[in-house]
Amino acid sequence: MTIADYLDDFEERDWQTTAHGTVRFAVIGLGWWTVDRTIPALLDSELCDITVAVSGSTDKANDVVDRFEPITHGITYDEFHHGAASDAYDAIYICSPNALHLPYAETAADLGKAIFCEKPMEASVERAERMVDVASDDDVPLLVGYRMHTEPAIRRARELIRDGTIGRPVVALGNNTQSLIDINDDPDQWRLNPDLVGSGVSVTDIGIYPLNTARFLLDADPLTAQAQMDSTHEFFADVPDERTAFTLSMDDGTFLASTASQNAQSSTSLRIVGTDGEIYVEPAFHMETELRLTRDETTVDLSTPQVDQMTEILTYFADRILSGEAIGPDGDHGLVDVRVIEAIYEAAESDQTVTIQ
Amino acid sequence: MTIADYLDDFEERDWQTTAHGTVRFAVIGLGWWTVDRTIPALLDSELCDITVAVSGSTDKANDVVDRFEPITHGITYDEFHHGAASDAYDAIYICSPNALHLPYAETAADLGKAIFCEKPMEASVERAERMVDVASDDDVPLLVGYRMHTEPAIRRARELIRDGTIGRPVVALGNNTQSLIDINDDPDQWRLNPDLVGSGVSVTDIGIYPLNTARFLLDADPLTAQAQMDSTHEFFADVPDERTAFTLSMDDGTFLASTASQNAQSSTSLRIVGTDGEIYVEPAFHMETELRLTRDETTVDLSTPQVDQMTEILTYFADRILSGEAIGPDGDHGLVDVRVIEAIYEAAESDQTVTIQ
Repeated sequence: MTIADYLDDFEERDWQTTAHGTVRFAVIGLGWWTVDRTIPALLDSELCDITVAVSGSTDKANDVVDRFEPITHGITYDEFHHGAASDAYDAIYICSPNALHLPYAETAADLGKAIFCEKPMEASVERAERMVDVASDDDVPLLVGYRMHTEPAIRRARELIRDGTIGRPVVALGNNTQSLIDINDDPDQWRLNPDLVGSGVSVTDIGIYPLNTARFLLDADPLTAQAQMDSTHEFFADVPDERTAFTLSMDDGTFLASTASQNAQSSTSLRIVGTDGEIYVEPAFHMETELRLTRDETTVDLSTPQVDQMTEILTYFADRILSGEAIGPDGDHGLVDVRVIEAIYEAAESDQTVTIQ
Repeated sequence: MTIADYLDDFEERDWQTTAHGTVRFAVIGLGWWTVDRTIPALLDSELCDITVAVSGSTDKANDVVDRFEPITHGITYDEFHHGAASDAYDAIYICSPNALHLPYAETAADLGKAIFCEKPMEASVERAERMVDVASDDDVPLLVGYRMHTEPAIRRARELIRDGTIGRPVVALGNNTQSLIDINDDPDQWRLNPDLVGSGVSVTDIGIYPLNTARFLLDADPLTAQAQMDSTHEFFADVPDERTAFTLSMDDGTFLASTASQNAQSSTSLRIVGTDGEIYVEPAFHMETELRLTRDETTVDLSTPQVDQMTEILTYFADRILSGEAIGPDGDHGLVDVRVIEAIYEAAESDQTVTIQ
């Protein structure tokens, strides 16, 4: 095989079926991520459309209707729960505070709508389990929005690992840091409110990236968790993890060590060291991704197409709905992360290794 | 200040005094590191000479005498302890199995010789404490061989952190992996014998690099340790840590997460993420070192001179002896690492966070 063959063989969307059609979305929660990232991605996707905007306030919903021409309905959360405009959409996109994901999923399941829920699924294991149950009971598709699963560089890394290119994986090392204050300096934001975010802000919101991406790359799940964390800046007074370091033992025998902080320089990376080589991704988790492969003494930088990661994952979701194929990051997959996150906070609190149930 | 000023200001050997003279070494333990790395470095250093080779066997000692012209005496360990050739050297270099460092240090202290001891100092806290005591009682200089302390890239990184270039440090992330089998495939080697190596093989032998280099860069010491580790390959059946992930909380408020394995691809790196930037060193811990600085949106690759790290640390040690200046990585400094290493193994064994005494 030549390297040209290898490069030509790579399918950027190896998941895509021949299904065609359009999945019409109602987007729930009109924060900056939904407005700046998700709505443009839905408009860009050949399999998606957006018809409904749902917000706490009629004004905010109508502003979005005015701004994006294909959106025809602006409704409130209450109206959504009462089934307003339900003929106008086939699926919902949930980007509310973590602890408020479940009610939208419940209503969507009742209405027979497919559910795209941002990660983490919910603020507690019990509520995440309920989301899995409601989707299952009403037989509606449920995807948790891990956009790394359809990021070409990450898929290529996974394929390299599966092909044995780095030998048997041994250890993984991840980091995800950013400045939440630079992103949103409101001390009353939901990410800093334990009632809305869940146990904390760094593991839950950004540590979940190395955690879940390592799971995806290794095709392995965590067995035990350890963690140390602290908050000293007053902005983070209500959450335990302004910064954290945690480790996980995985069911393939590897260990992951990771750091995360919401009060640091932006930096994202993930390293998987195997017996015969290494995969290194940096930057790793946001809109840009660069992949480096080392095998023995040879290192290759693999630049993959810099795609819009939201367009990819939303198109994947629509493809699954239209084709009826199984969803990778489904409710059961997302539930594991919620269990791991709870174990990490429990480990930090108890100063003991916690077994993940 | 221009960048030219900055670059011109950097002193590769900012530690060097005007002291001159020659420190004559006896080298103890004639394994490959001593023969291939240390002896050539001693011959290369303008402040060092080597006159005595000490080994378990007269033949092995005499082979080294024959091979390196300046060495005039080949003696056994017993002869060393009886003071043989003690007029011919001023300092000793110890590179025996970890658990055998102490007796050479004791004899050297009795003889009034300076002590350069490879890291870790000893196989237990109690024995490392005794080494500190004997050097102190006999008032002889004692340095633990952390060659990162005189590596120009690491010194530059430390200076950048001290100058506030990355803001306040938040988290550190390290990795040190290699294939011990590729280096030495003898299953009876001392590194795999708990009586000689200490508690284990990956933390003790290579995890000590991210641990100590993070301490040096942050100018901080560990307070608590957590660790997960496992051995599955039969080659590592007698040690607990074929591979490991550990975390440390540091007394400056930062957390270090690190991985290490003696059964993996060679890979070394250390990342320090601060509030305003990041230091990234890769490769980090062996004879080649590359430094990258990120501050806000700007990234600079800083190539520093690729020095012989053994020549640098041995010359530093000789300079300290000749000038009477204080030693950075002294016995007290090395003792902290031995305490941390014991805490890491205890944490893995007990599944609890261990406070470092």
